[in-house]
Amino acid sequence: MAPAMVANGDVSFANSVPALVGGRFAVYSELQRSRIDHALPLPRVLTGNFQVVDGPNSSAAGNPDEIAKLFPCLFGQPSSMVVPSDSEGLPSDQQLKVGVVLSGGQAPGGHNVICGIFDYLQARTKGSTVYGFKGGPAGIMKCKYVELTSDFVYPYRNQGGFDMICSGRDKIETPEQFKQAEETALKLDLDGLVVIGGDDSNTNACLLAENFRSKNMKTRVIGCPKTIDGDLKCKEVPASFGFDTACKVYAEMIGNVMVDARSTGKYYHFVRLMGRAASHITLECALQTHPNITLIGEEVAKIETEKMLIQMVETELEKRKAEGTYKGQFKGQSHFFGYEGRCGLPTNFDASYCYALGYAAGALLHSGKTGLISSVGNLAAPVEEWTVGGTALTALMDVERRHGKFKPVIKKAMVELEGAPFKKFASMREELALKNRYISPGPIQFVGPTANAVNHTLLLELGAQG
Amino acid sequence: MAPAMVANGDVSFANSVPALVGGRFAVYSELQRSRIDHALPLPRVLTGNFQVVDGPNSSAAGNPDEIAKLFPCLFGQPSSMVVPSDSEGLPSDQQLKVGVVLSGGQAPGGHNVICGIFDYLQARTKGSTVYGFKGGPAGIMKCKYVELTSDFVYPYRNQGGFDMICSGRDKIETPEQFKQAEETALKLDLDGLVVIGGDDSNTNACLLAENFRSKNMKTRVIGCPKTIDGDLKCKEVPASFGFDTACKVYAEMIGNVMVDARSTGKYYHFVRLMGRAASHITLECALQTHPNITLIGEEVAKIETEKMLIQMVETELEKRKAEGTYKGQFKGQSHFFGYEGRCGLPTNFDASYCYALGYAAGALLHSGKTGLISSVGNLAAPVEEWTVGGTALTALMDVERRHGKFKPVIKKAMVELEGAPFKKFASMREELALKNRYISPGPIQFVGPTANAVNHTLLLELGAQG
Repeated sequence: MAPAMVANGDVSFANSVPALVGGRFAVYSELQRSRIDHALPLPRVLTGNFQVVDGPNSSAAGNPDEIAKLFPCLFGQPSSMVVPSDSEGLPSDQQLKVGVVLSGGQAPGGHNVICGIFDYLQARTKGSTVYGFKGGPAGIMKCKYVELTSDFVYPYRNQGGFDMICSGRDKIETPEQFKQAEETALKLDLDGLVVIGGDDSNTNACLLAENFRSKNMKTRVIGCPKTIDGDLKCKEVPASFGFDTACKVYAEMIGNVMVDARSTGKYYHFVRLMGRAASHITLECALQTHPNITLIGEEVAKIETEKMLIQMVETELEKRKAEGTYKGQFKGQSHFFGYEGRCGLPTNFDASYCYALGYAAGALLHSGKTGLISSVGNLAAPVEEWTVGGTALTALMDVERRHGKFKPVIKKAMVELEGAPFKKFASMREELALKNRYISPGPIQFVGPTANAVNHTLLLELGAQG
Repeated sequence: MAPAMVANGDVSFANSVPALVGGRFAVYSELQRSRIDHALPLPRVLTGNFQVVDGPNSSAAGNPDEIAKLFPCLFGQPSSMVVPSDSEGLPSDQQLKVGVVLSGGQAPGGHNVICGIFDYLQARTKGSTVYGFKGGPAGIMKCKYVELTSDFVYPYRNQGGFDMICSGRDKIETPEQFKQAEETALKLDLDGLVVIGGDDSNTNACLLAENFRSKNMKTRVIGCPKTIDGDLKCKEVPASFGFDTACKVYAEMIGNVMVDARSTGKYYHFVRLMGRAASHITLECALQTHPNITLIGEEVAKIETEKMLIQMVETELEKRKAEGTYKGQFKGQSHFFGYEGRCGLPTNFDASYCYALGYAAGALLHSGKTGLISSVGNLAAPVEEWTVGGTALTALMDVERRHGKFKPVIKKAMVELEGAPFKKFASMREELALKNRYISPGPIQFVGPTANAVNHTLLLELGAQG
């Protein structure tokens, strides 16, 4: 029998983990502690000598003329690939000063992106400094930061949440705010800044990169694709981190509720999942668990809440009862799964993916790049074979007209009704509705046969599955 | 990368698992499938030759005179222990006909109790027959059953839910209902019946045992302690099954929400957990996760819902704002964790415990016992060292007066304010309220360092922990 957590949480914790974690004394469960030392594999290309090579000049996702006007310095710049090199590659005698910021809602794996950046700089640019801006972009504007050290970073390895430096939803938008960011960059003598965030945060990262470049400042900016919603993705950025873990947490809960439903036959369960406009989470969970009915917002106008849906069913069945066409009993149970998933312990996939994203961001900064989003590909293959590079953020952009002005945006990737994941779902839909084909994925495993499974959406999109 | 579940769920499923599962085609996730073949250790005493020895005559938990009147045949009978034997022990040439029924709400591990009974009879009384009564006690009264075979039982090994034969909340209470049960027992020529249920179901099991005995019928009845609520326990029955798994599922969710809270500082989370009168689940989850405030119903009148609690806090803070003594912002988020836990994949502990309970029930029936509840002890030790026996159900009983008549009841075990688990919690309470000592236990693991951890309540109650 393993000892229980309460007792040795207090006792042995101080021995293995620094007691002061981000200003808070953290008590770790046995599983959290065991995850700290989980070894993270790296894409092979990042383990030896490499160089960063440029591709062809890029354009924009839409309205290139407007994007060119909004990003006069950066528009058109090529995306980059990290490739093996015979010679020593990037200079190892550089000492970089790099800031990192978490922007927006939590997603499992954020801490590992930071660890990746930190480890890259430790390994390849010895003597470098990493600053963690606290509480999101506001930390940049107010120059609120903490210097990240080995000891400081260590307890957060492979851990969920964003509590190492916390996040925030402020944006750097107005001329005054850009000025504040410049002052911080100058004060800390920043060579680089890594912005870990969703579509909006990466758009802002690019505006910041453009602004620094236009002022001839040396500070370069690299983005990293974060969001459990899964709506920040494209060919070069096949997944945003956190999606894999969050979906698996929700799928565990849905699967359990399904087993419950099958055992009692007493309730009809209605589950709402966290998310904004895009329905990737819902589609992924449907593929993982096979509920009878799944509403995909991109296909049908989304119904407001699971409770309203229950009311609608009740109203309809009462009508049918009055007409004598329905005699059964309907009991609805509503669920909302949200906060439970976005701070879960990262899956092995998210842990490795985030670490690679951070490591790649370090390499891109090291090679002098700016205005790119860290891009790790070939994700259906073993980690060693993953590809690494940076995609020009301007290449992902289009414009939207707001208050009579063009604003750059990275368009949210919605569920494509012609894409492989939706088509797979649609092909099963009729059968799922009438028969109970429930699947219960169970809890996320870190060791054993399912520990390295990847979400269905990614596999289907990458065509790795029939 | 492991292949995704959707594709090979359909394809390879038919090879490893019978396609027709309890009348439903079940599609298993990779994890569910891997659990089917998880090897279950048995207490050492059940692996060799053993005999069942009687202890001293028993009494009742309260009002023994009334219990003696209600159970004239069974009152006073001794509890039994299974002990090693040099000789061959119980006769192996008996062929028994045994029925099994699931009674009341689901608890993780129920399937393994059935597997334990089945495997015992296969191993020790070759040629025996096991009938699964469908849909709870109503299945006994209506003689609705399925004959359990190796193929039928196989896919449910180590699986959550009660869907093998389903459960129900009907009770066998009236003279007509007892008559129906007799008819079924005679029709199927039952030597034994195992009732898997909570306190009420075990009381009914004992009434049924008394009734069969009073009619000179050969049908013996053995109970098994099931309830996630954890309120069916005593010295001889140190745990009811399902509690371990359910608490760990809830604790995973609570831990994730805590990490979320620590990362944003935006919301105050209020969590309500499934359960009836007793607060064992809440106490266990508090010990596992360390929330700031935990309300234990046995200590304070329980507040009705988490939503009402949020409203009360809002009202109080608005009052303080008007007075000028509070300037902060309060945003409450309510959660109810219930159905997600009671059908989870059983932990290794619940899987082994249930299997031992079922195996023990088989041994008790084999040795001619009736009116006992299967009792497995020494649970903080490795499975091999667990003790095995049967406790006289009448010894757990008291009476309650209902409608002017004495009714036998097994008293629900409430959280004892003088017990070790509550005292441990109480000793931390002040510190937890003011400091964030959140622990995030993470998802249940089946392999690796935390796979065999047991819940804190059990360890503290058994005194296995300081």
